[in-house]
Amino acid sequence: MKRHDNRRPTQHRPVTIQRHFTKHAGGSVVVSFGETRVLCTAMLEQEVPPWLRAKGPGGGGWLTAEYNMLPSSTTTRKRRDSGKPDGRSVEIQRLIGRALRSCIDLKQLEGPKCGLTLFVDCDVLQADGGTRTAAITGAWVAVADAIARARNSGLLSATAKPLINQVAAISIGIVNGVPVLDLDYAEDVDAYVDMNVAMLADNTFVEVQGTGEHATFSTKQLNEMLSMAQKGIRSLHKLQRAAMK
Amino acid sequence: MKRHDNRRPTQHRPVTIQRHFTKHAGGSVVVSFGETRVLCTAMLEQEVPPWLRAKGPGGGGWLTAEYNMLPSSTTTRKRRDSGKPDGRSVEIQRLIGRALRSCIDLKQLEGPKCGLTLFVDCDVLQADGGTRTAAITGAWVAVADAIARARNSGLLSATAKPLINQVAAISIGIVNGVPVLDLDYAEDVDAYVDMNVAMLADNTFVEVQGTGEHATFSTKQLNEMLSMAQKGIRSLHKLQRAAMK
Amino acid sequence: MKRHDNRRPTQHRPVTIQRHFTKHAGGSVVVSFGETRVLCTAMLEQEVPPWLRAKGPGGGGWLTAEYNMLPSSTTTRKRRDSGKPDGRSVEIQRLIGRALRSCIDLKQLEGPKCGLTLFVDCDVLQADGGTRTAAITGAWVAVADAIARARNSGLLSATAKPLINQVAAISIGIVNGVPVLDLDYAEDVDAYVDMNVAMLADNTFVEVQGTGEHATFSTKQLNEMLSMAQKGIRSLHKLQRAAMK
Amino acid sequence: MKRHDNRRPTQHRPVTIQRHFTKHAGGSVVVSFGETRVLCTAMLEQEVPPWLRAKGPGGGGWLTAEYNMLPSSTTTRKRRDSGKPDGRSVEIQRLIGRALRSCIDLKQLEGPKCGLTLFVDCDVLQADGGTRTAAITGAWVAVADAIARARNSGLLSATAKPLINQVAAISIGIVNGVPVLDLDYAEDVDAYVDMNVAMLADNTFVEVQGTGEHATFSTKQLNEMLSMAQKGIRSLHKLQRAAMK
Amino acid sequence: MKRHDNRRPTQHRPVTIQRHFTKHAGGSVVVSFGETRVLCTAMLEQEVPPWLRAKGPGGGGWLTAEYNMLPSSTTTRKRRDSGKPDGRSVEIQRLIGRALRSCIDLKQLEGPKCGLTLFVDCDVLQADGGTRTAAITGAWVAVADAIARARNSGLLSATAKPLINQVAAISIGIVNGVPVLDLDYAEDVDAYVDMNVAMLADNTFVEVQGTGEHATFSTKQLNEMLSMAQKGIRSLHKLQRAAMK
Amino acid sequence: MKRHDNRRPTQHRPVTIQRHFTKHAGGSVVVSFGETRVLCTAMLEQEVPPWLRAKGPGGGGWLTAEYNMLPSSTTTRKRRDSGKPDGRSVEIQRLIGRALRSCIDLKQLEGPKCGLTLFVDCDVLQADGGTRTAAITGAWVAVADAIARARNSGLLSATAKPLINQVAAISIGIVNGVPVLDLDYAEDVDAYVDMNVAMLADNTFVEVQGTGEHATFSTKQLNEMLSMAQKGIRSLHKLQRAAMK
Repeated sequence: MKRHDNRRPTQHRPVTIQRHFTKHAGGSVVVSFGETRVLCTAMLEQEVPPWLRAKGPGGGGWLTAEYNMLPSSTTTRKRRDSGKPDGRSVEIQRLIGRALRSCIDLKQLEGPKCGLTLFVDCDVLQADGGTRTAAITGAWVAVADAIARARNSGLLSATAKPLINQVAAISIGIVNGVPVLDLDYAEDVDAYVDMNVAMLADNTFVEVQGTGEHATFSTKQLNEMLSMAQKGIRSLHKLQRAAMK
Repeated sequence: MKRHDNRRPTQHRPVTIQRHFTKHAGGSVVVSFGETRVLCTAMLEQEVPPWLRAKGPGGGGWLTAEYNMLPSSTTTRKRRDSGKPDGRSVEIQRLIGRALRSCIDLKQLEGPKCGLTLFVDCDVLQADGGTRTAAITGAWVAVADAIARARNSGLLSATAKPLINQVAAISIGIVNGVPVLDLDYAEDVDAYVDMNVAMLADNTFVEVQGTGEHATFSTKQLNEMLSMAQKGIRSLHKLQRAAMK
Repeated sequence: MKRHDNRRPTQHRPVTIQRHFTKHAGGSVVVSFGETRVLCTAMLEQEVPPWLRAKGPGGGGWLTAEYNMLPSSTTTRKRRDSGKPDGRSVEIQRLIGRALRSCIDLKQLEGPKCGLTLFVDCDVLQADGGTRTAAITGAWVAVADAIARARNSGLLSATAKPLINQVAAISIGIVNGVPVLDLDYAEDVDAYVDMNVAMLADNTFVEVQGTGEHATFSTKQLNEMLSMAQKGIRSLHKLQRAAMK
Repeated sequence: MKRHDNRRPTQHRPVTIQRHFTKHAGGSVVVSFGETRVLCTAMLEQEVPPWLRAKGPGGGGWLTAEYNMLPSSTTTRKRRDSGKPDGRSVEIQRLIGRALRSCIDLKQLEGPKCGLTLFVDCDVLQADGGTRTAAITGAWVAVADAIARARNSGLLSATAKPLINQVAAISIGIVNGVPVLDLDYAEDVDAYVDMNVAMLADNTFVEVQGTGEHATFSTKQLNEMLSMAQKGIRSLHKLQRAAMK
Repeated sequence: MKRHDNRRPTQHRPVTIQRHFTKHAGGSVVVSFGETRVLCTAMLEQEVPPWLRAKGPGGGGWLTAEYNMLPSSTTTRKRRDSGKPDGRSVEIQRLIGRALRSCIDLKQLEGPKCGLTLFVDCDVLQADGGTRTAAITGAWVAVADAIARARNSGLLSATAKPLINQVAAISIGIVNGVPVLDLDYAEDVDAYVDMNVAMLADNTFVEVQGTGEHATFSTKQLNEMLSMAQKGIRSLHKLQRAAMK
Repeated sequence: MKRHDNRRPTQHRPVTIQRHFTKHAGGSVVVSFGETRVLCTAMLEQEVPPWLRAKGPGGGGWLTAEYNMLPSSTTTRKRRDSGKPDGRSVEIQRLIGRALRSCIDLKQLEGPKCGLTLFVDCDVLQADGGTRTAAITGAWVAVADAIARARNSGLLSATAKPLINQVAAISIGIVNGVPVLDLDYAEDVDAYVDMNVAMLADNTFVEVQGTGEHATFSTKQLNEMLSMAQKGIRSLHKLQRAAMK
């Protein structure tokens, strides 16, 4: 099978990770998966959600994520949400939050006065498929940067190491019966099965979300897709580590 | 391993499917997975969403699902949503909608005057773990009933057969390192990995959603869970067919 | 005059009161007035509204009611409220709250740590006229059950007797010039005058709400309707007491 | 019994009805019941609600009412509603709408091009008890003025007579065991039973709303209150007619 | 140039300032600029916004303004806001708030227990151009009255003098190439440039807001308009002081 | 006076204008005024607001602007709006819209089928004072690009020239008694008077908004500030034209 951009089925798009895009957030990363570009920021603030505050001091902190598409990120302008985000965004930001929390020892998110919340914001600058997996991959770098800065500023103690793992994510789809990695928008439209996988550095899965609304998939196909995802994510892990240097 | 209710790891809870619970909806089913009880209704109405209406006549219909917990369904009263449903409910109702649409030939949802929408409502009467999988399993029966009634009433033509497949769903989790089927609330609290699977009658997957926020899982564990899910869902498929008689 | 279901003008529909419908709420009752079915639950929780909390400790508790129609309860699907309930629901839930509070000594709603709120939820499962009067009648039983359970669990002291009276409610309308009791939906559509009455066990009124938007009524007609209501409610009072045994 | 302002139990407060308070609305009335002052306006516009428009041409018009307290109308500032009006306001504006519609032949609310809606707005300038009954009484005059102006401007045909009756309303309460008419705020706080009555010129009732949250009432007491209300409303009817001259 | 109401270009409309319009608010003023009439009230309450409360005791108080048009204030009925006010109202109420705060020493808004907030409400009774400038001019009088009453009641200490200056405002526009003062609605529609100016008693400006959406203006024109505004506002200052006597 | 970054009072910060930042919008510009960075996009779409559609075909088009700060654009994370934008954002986006509309002949915004709307989105990436003036300056370039692309794609006819003027904007403030141009955040905090000016290429003003909440200003000071603004904006006009090449 030939992909429209000449990639092999197992090949992800060119990925770039630009750190320090803006200055106020501890972590501020623009990640690109091909033409998809997402601004991922992480800010560590001295507050915790009410249910955690109710547990009293020493309860550790929290990480929460928000996902948003800028109005100009899509071919036809996307209206801003009036009130709560739309259903798709809610689903995505919950996925991002869970994936990142799997890398954080929340107990160690303790500031001088109270627990800390890591606010992760993923704002899509330009959408071309795979925004949620790009967001997870870029946000992990932003989180690492925010934690490092907080250690420097004293917001976190110098010995705190809340970042306990590394996560990246990639999509796989079945197009014309063949599994392919990291679909862009043109491929996504043609895909019958759509899967998003987030994986840690030790090759264990954090999230496996396979959806076959337009066609279903067998155990065999699932395993092919997972194996392809694992290879792709290992490559993303390397790129993340390279960017951190 | 001993489960607190003496089930084997591969055993689902007693499942009952009560049809015709109320009279106005074409399909009205109360499904129980042990102590979890969900009212699943399906109503077929002469309207389609704006984006489908814009396509003009002959564009077929749509299926949409809403999920809601009654305030008294949980041990501590759950406040009614002010405005849009909360994030978890949004995520669940999107899952239910996708799973059911995989069984419907939307092109055939055509009424005498315009396309039709199947409105599926899943209202949790009593929650004890596994509400989303019970909802999918019960809602499929409600959808089948609503379609049959619509054929009788002439809303659908006598030759229309929009129901083209059968779906049921079950949860699996890893508790104390061991995969177990159909967790109740007490087990869910202890589970480190949580997976929900929806499968058609031909054993292909519609949805595989595995989440390891508290621990991750390997490909091997994933396959064990999937295999357990498949057996469980085949049992649910039988119970659905028995209820339809 | 012949009623379409052969009832006498002074006869209410068959009434059933099913307790313990679900397990989490202290009181959980499904009440039927003919084909109208309402799930009435009562949950006693350790909190009070801000205006009462501002009064400080020993200020007693509160009772609040919410009324909601499930989307599938009506012949055409009723959309869920986006935000606050619609005008009719607001009017009804305020009526239910007032009627039930007339039976409660709010000063005695005191828990071990703070005042208590009785949350009453009336969710209409199936609507066929008279949902608000069925709701009041069923909710009183749910409230009685919730108070009894709270005394058992120690949330209320063993000597507290906050339930100081018994309330039930019924509708009366003028159809074809004749007053009839407990209208179903078909009669309601034809009624020109519509009245809802809630009454205590000592035959005094808590609420009398008569509305003649389509025709008006004289003092004489009002008294005929009230007399009919009183007889009907006395019958409901007996059914409530029978259900409590 | 002596009332704090020396009124007899059957005596209402001084009532004034000032027409043409503002110029844009067809009817613009400031009504005073003692210190209670409400601005009641009526505007007839060329539109009908969606459910009426769906009936097609010749379906007549509609009357809708809104009730609002200005922030400065109460002793402590009342916050403006964020979104929908609060429960009490909803209940009141539904009452006002029903009472006024009982005086209108909606079929005759037809304009040159389409049906017409009479928008009634009751904005409380100063609250001292009885705002809803003052609002109904003043709004009837505003409605009459708006209809007359619309006939002059040609919005209504010269032969249309949609105003087919006259309505006014008054409150009665039981204070210290004695029924008293037209309670001001100081009396309202002490009242155990509270009743609002709207009546037409032919002495038939449009609305009877008696509430005994703090104490209940017997049939005998109800009849005493109704008789007192009838006398009071006949006096208001006269004042309305005098103002119209 | 002849103005349609025969005013000279530099002449404002007849202005009246009626104090004590309602009784609950400390300041309650109906101001008229010709046919434009605005109810301006000021209430001083024992609370401060969260950001000020966070500063702890002795932080002084705040002044906030809200602007609202009554539904009947315009020729076609203006719908009430659902939720937040519309963009134009937001812009206006922020302008009113800033103009009034320039006259208040916020440090002195201290009550016996905590800081105080001056709530200013400007509700337009009848709109005919210039509502925002009328609102500022009338609200200053209401604020002065509210402060005086608070000193009498002891809410403010007898020595507190938080009112440190006097503000009034007026509009100027360019109609047919000529600057004119205090436009009414008919002129406003024809104006190409629109300017609102608020000025203190010492002839310094608090706000200068000139907008040339339909045509632009030169420095020379701006200075002509400002000079015209200054003369007009000095006249308004005199009328305010006369009203305060 | 020495400015903390060594600028002269009349000197604006280094300004950069980066076009084609993203690909979907016709115009996509990142503008920097020193450390302030705003993404300004312009998209021309085939729709018009309801009030314009009601005028029928040939009515031309519209331009509307939205302003938003990304959560990570400020030193402390800014929460996303729930529902409508906050008051400050409303005020700013109305200003941006008016300034840009002064450069557009709306009559010429006609597409092949219907009128067109130019949607301008200004999303602040990094805030350091002067975001609204940077937004206007950058958005004008984005609008010019969007119009050019629409002419190429045939959405606008080849002869349409709706862009009839050029606008840029700058802020001026009085700091320590001295007027200074283009304040950054540190200076803004110290400024007593704050002014924003938008001006066309012919040196006429579109908007002059001077606010003296913390201190007032005389006519002389106003003229000094305006003169400083004019010089600054002429420099911005040159930079815009240079960027367009």
